[in-house]
Amino acid sequence: MIQIAIMGLGTVGTGVAKVVAENARQIERKLGEPLQVKTILVRHFKDGPYRQLMTDDFTKIEEDHAIRVVVETIGGVEAAYEYTKRALNAGKHVVTANKQLVAEKGAELLALAKKRGVNYLFEASVGGGIPVLHPLTQCMAANRIDEVYGILNGTTNYILTRMVRAGTTFADALKEAQEKGYAEADPTADVEGVDAGRKICILADLAFGCQVDPADVPMEGISRLSLRDVKIAQRAGYRVKLLGRAVRLPGGRTAYVAPHLIPEEQPLASVDDVFNAVVVRGNATGEVMFYGQGAGELPTASACVADVMEALQSSPRREEIGWEADPAGFEDPQALRSRYYFRIGGSLSAAAAAFGQVEILSEDGGETAFLTDCISGAEAGKQAEGLRVLACLRVLG
Amino acid sequence: MIQIAIMGLGTVGTGVAKVVAENARQIERKLGEPLQVKTILVRHFKDGPYRQLMTDDFTKIEEDHAIRVVVETIGGVEAAYEYTKRALNAGKHVVTANKQLVAEKGAELLALAKKRGVNYLFEASVGGGIPVLHPLTQCMAANRIDEVYGILNGTTNYILTRMVRAGTTFADALKEAQEKGYAEADPTADVEGVDAGRKICILADLAFGCQVDPADVPMEGISRLSLRDVKIAQRAGYRVKLLGRAVRLPGGRTAYVAPHLIPEEQPLASVDDVFNAVVVRGNATGEVMFYGQGAGELPTASACVADVMEALQSSPRREEIGWEADPAGFEDPQALRSRYYFRIGGSLSAAAAAFGQVEILSEDGGETAFLTDCISGAEAGKQAEGLRVLACLRVLG
Repeated sequence: MIQIAIMGLGTVGTGVAKVVAENARQIERKLGEPLQVKTILVRHFKDGPYRQLMTDDFTKIEEDHAIRVVVETIGGVEAAYEYTKRALNAGKHVVTANKQLVAEKGAELLALAKKRGVNYLFEASVGGGIPVLHPLTQCMAANRIDEVYGILNGTTNYILTRMVRAGTTFADALKEAQEKGYAEADPTADVEGVDAGRKICILADLAFGCQVDPADVPMEGISRLSLRDVKIAQRAGYRVKLLGRAVRLPGGRTAYVAPHLIPEEQPLASVDDVFNAVVVRGNATGEVMFYGQGAGELPTASACVADVMEALQSSPRREEIGWEADPAGFEDPQALRSRYYFRIGGSLSAAAAAFGQVEILSEDGGETAFLTDCISGAEAGKQAEGLRVLACLRVLG
Repeated sequence: MIQIAIMGLGTVGTGVAKVVAENARQIERKLGEPLQVKTILVRHFKDGPYRQLMTDDFTKIEEDHAIRVVVETIGGVEAAYEYTKRALNAGKHVVTANKQLVAEKGAELLALAKKRGVNYLFEASVGGGIPVLHPLTQCMAANRIDEVYGILNGTTNYILTRMVRAGTTFADALKEAQEKGYAEADPTADVEGVDAGRKICILADLAFGCQVDPADVPMEGISRLSLRDVKIAQRAGYRVKLLGRAVRLPGGRTAYVAPHLIPEEQPLASVDDVFNAVVVRGNATGEVMFYGQGAGELPTASACVADVMEALQSSPRREEIGWEADPAGFEDPQALRSRYYFRIGGSLSAAAAAFGQVEILSEDGGETAFLTDCISGAEAGKQAEGLRVLACLRVLG
């Protein structure tokens, strides 16, 4: 019998308890022993099936030598950070779905875990139930990873899908998402690209082996995205998607979050609703894509439980899950070159005067929408200086 | 310095040598030591960059204690089977891309590896460079896997894509594929579904934990597929794809290979050209899809090298990569229920007389194409008994 603890009994924490109970037979077959949730740390006691396992005293977990793995689903940094350090120091493996903590403190916590001879695993922090981090670090270990990008946030993807399919405005689509439980009452972290930004930091950390500090990563969400641009793009054969993107550069690396135009024939373009997808480009494998439900109680929880099993089975000396704490070598994504979509107040001749040859997508009511040639972000900004820019989006690929 | 051997210097074997050299820095960073190919077993010596590493004497590998991992890329059963057993018995890890050997002898070789305290790994045998087997067994370990299906063969997917996009017949598309090097001179194993069949056996073995014998698995290819049916399906909003499919049943499991109609809004429907995609349905994660290049020198080789690294880093007691040798509990896929596509020589009234309510797709020149309700394969066969059946295909989902 292997005993574990859960910290936090929100959506994911409850899901972990459910998966451990519901799939007990599968888990035991693979682990060779049954797995049991012994203790659950909560702030406030509440009635329910797990009442007898609850404690509000962390030392009950910290000092219990029978507990070998702690699943942290508190979220945020403060308490989660404190308890994770103490659990690792107590010689327990820690598993988490907490993307903020991993993005901000991952290098430090991984170093501590290594020092204590235990594992710190976080597959569930990116892509929920979709296997992404292990395939990236392990199955693609013989590749030089050159780029990772993807649809990393289900809430914004649902909103964008509604804008495309039903012609709903951002504000109305957000309201719908909130009614369906896909968006939180305060949707800021989702719609402003912060959630996707934390995930792309973790992907960049693992792909390139060096810390990417979330504070360095430009994050642009979809709250200022106009339905007009979504429709113009769609008519021209593009879908607008919010992407997190991390790219290896000759001397370093960069990462950012922003809405992009994606050609409709690309697999990512048809990833709709709350689904997520991550594309990894390795120098040997080419592009590989992982697709599925990026959130939700049971998918995310099952990724945590798989990490529990992984922590118990593998030694903690796996170098591939880890990265250098030094964030040096991070560059501004403005250096990246791509085509740009612009909508300006003005005529085609104004656009052509600023950018030379452009591909016109729409000319209507004194506004012109067009695609530029492949240029850097810095060039795009400079060349557009004299124009009245109403929208500016990168084109993928 | 960790030394390995390669057996067989065809496409994949050569790729392994290239990946080890080209990505030496990435590999060393993760492994903590450099990796080196010491010996390559060939049947006939040939000139080239690896001439000095070649031997035609297996004992030079078997008896060399410095060689810790052997990569088997000979293919087929006979010599590959013999040398794999001897390498495992000599205490060496064995890594392979040989789907035929794993499908037919996997249970035995895994048991032998376990007995000798070494690993037998074969990520490259399914999906080439796409991570599939590790994510299935490890990241989804806390799931009960209920179904696995996918586009497992790039050659047939290329042919089907040409039939849909350019209206090419099967015979002409096959010729094109051979000219492009996507199909072999003898394309039987690809076009008759045997290659996909071996891969679905391996996926079923891992998903359900029991041996699925390739000889039990009905394999239908695309060589008898008519362009007419591809076109009718396309006009009705479906794509025809060759699928391998394995399903958990109440008392057991089943698996088969056959062309299917796939609704065009499903992600699999837009997997074109030589790309592969595998969908895994877990009871917690729901459907998860893995997509990428399913073959090719460097993608497949990089999966082998990742397994070499995995073999060196992990203990061989991982129960999740393994299955019972007993093939009991395999059932005929005729029991599975789905909608069916039929094209018959005869009228709609003949179709309706046999199947009751049907959805008509085309009625032309004395032929009628239609979709049935959801019925079992046995029912489909029985109800069609009096009809002149020109085509019969399952509909997915």
